[in-house]
Amino acid sequence: MGNGHITLVGGGPGAWDLLTIRGLRALEAADVILADHLGPSAELAEFLDLTGKEVVDVAKLPYAKQVAQERINELLVAYAREGKHVVRLKGGDPYVFGRGFEELQACAAAGLTCDVVPGVTSAISVPATAGVPVTQRGATHAFTVVSGHVPPEDPRSLVDWGALARVGGTIVVVMGVRNVRAIAAALVEAGLDASTPAAVVQEGETDAQRAFFATASTLADVMEAEGVASPAVYVFGEVAGLAHAR
Amino acid sequence: MGNGHITLVGGGPGAWDLLTIRGLRALEAADVILADHLGPSAELAEFLDLTGKEVVDVAKLPYAKQVAQERINELLVAYAREGKHVVRLKGGDPYVFGRGFEELQACAAAGLTCDVVPGVTSAISVPATAGVPVTQRGATHAFTVVSGHVPPEDPRSLVDWGALARVGGTIVVVMGVRNVRAIAAALVEAGLDASTPAAVVQEGETDAQRAFFATASTLADVMEAEGVASPAVYVFGEVAGLAHAR
Repeated sequence: MGNGHITLVGGGPGAWDLLTIRGLRALEAADVILADHLGPSAELAEFLDLTGKEVVDVAKLPYAKQVAQERINELLVAYAREGKHVVRLKGGDPYVFGRGFEELQACAAAGLTCDVVPGVTSAISVPATAGVPVTQRGATHAFTVVSGHVPPEDPRSLVDWGALARVGGTIVVVMGVRNVRAIAAALVEAGLDASTPAAVVQEGETDAQRAFFATASTLADVMEAEGVASPAVYVFGEVAGLAHAR
Repeated sequence: MGNGHITLVGGGPGAWDLLTIRGLRALEAADVILADHLGPSAELAEFLDLTGKEVVDVAKLPYAKQVAQERINELLVAYAREGKHVVRLKGGDPYVFGRGFEELQACAAAGLTCDVVPGVTSAISVPATAGVPVTQRGATHAFTVVSGHVPPEDPRSLVDWGALARVGGTIVVVMGVRNVRAIAAALVEAGLDASTPAAVVQEGETDAQRAFFATASTLADVMEAEGVASPAVYVFGEVAGLAHAR
């Protein structure tokens, strides 16, 4: 029996119809689907005939049962070695804080072929759904997507938040709910105008979506008052002031 | 007769099967499609029954015949006022340097409803197709997408390239072929290590795709020697050194 094949599919921000056609076809051809709680996995049965397919939950949500990344890599390889067509369905885009490249490397190290299907990233589409474009002509020529899982001044941080404050583009923070106060303070201290518009969108592209608008100096208070919880994306920049709240 | 409806659809980087399912459905329901030469417009007839649909070419490619953005906005409004379902098919994502929000504003100003369907952005998916992930755990916690259409030190520039060099994340430059030498020099002068891996991908996700690998200090020479032309995306950062050339 020959080896199977692995496809990493970016599932988009949540609504299943934001999956790409290439991603859907990979799912249709799959024998095994490794899905977590990001992206459209909860709706799989609504848009896909699962007959004959094995769906493996590898949920990695914070504070939920963990299946370590190493175990996911092992599963991808093990199923492919059984000759199966394996799809790893991921939220957003596989290469935007999705560990997709680590999974690709694990497959390559095992001598297995692996395709990557890009997806609609939450970092851009979630603000968009609340009326916040990451770019706007005349207002910004750049946007930065940054993970907020490590706060500024933490020795593990790989980001110079002071430099980021001065780039002049839109700043999109993902995985940053817990550290919003420290992040906003670091940006303002480094020169980002305290009155810079800010917006936060919780559970974008789902029925539970909520969006709130503030400024760099008030965002943390607004998020605390409203009880904004993960997953949420927040944005600093003129573009956050263009929003049409829905 | 009532007003029609406008939908801005992100068509993805070029291959039509990187369109989202929501985008495809909007195209299927359209009476009129306004397309340019970005995204999957050249392949429209391959995946869509165009019977009864009007396809309007609003090409805005550099050096090609121009239809001004104002005219596009007027057309969107005029067709919708005729009661038509209008789709504006755009390359990549409508809000990533796509003037999508300007089109939305034009529709809103005319009192017309407008939906926005996000797309797979070329800024992330084009590097990905050459094996360059914009993020990698342990290597980067941020990536910046920046338009290179205005060179550093140009008075029109809205980007502090010196600050950008120090952020510590991946730097993805779109629309920057002409200014690559000035951009790379500005980044290195501001502190980006000259040996930082760099990669460029021309016409990603098409049959004509070409990718080249270099460093921050050699990228401009490599692109000149290889005759890299627009459209191309280039990347500075550790992630460019992870690439598996295909």
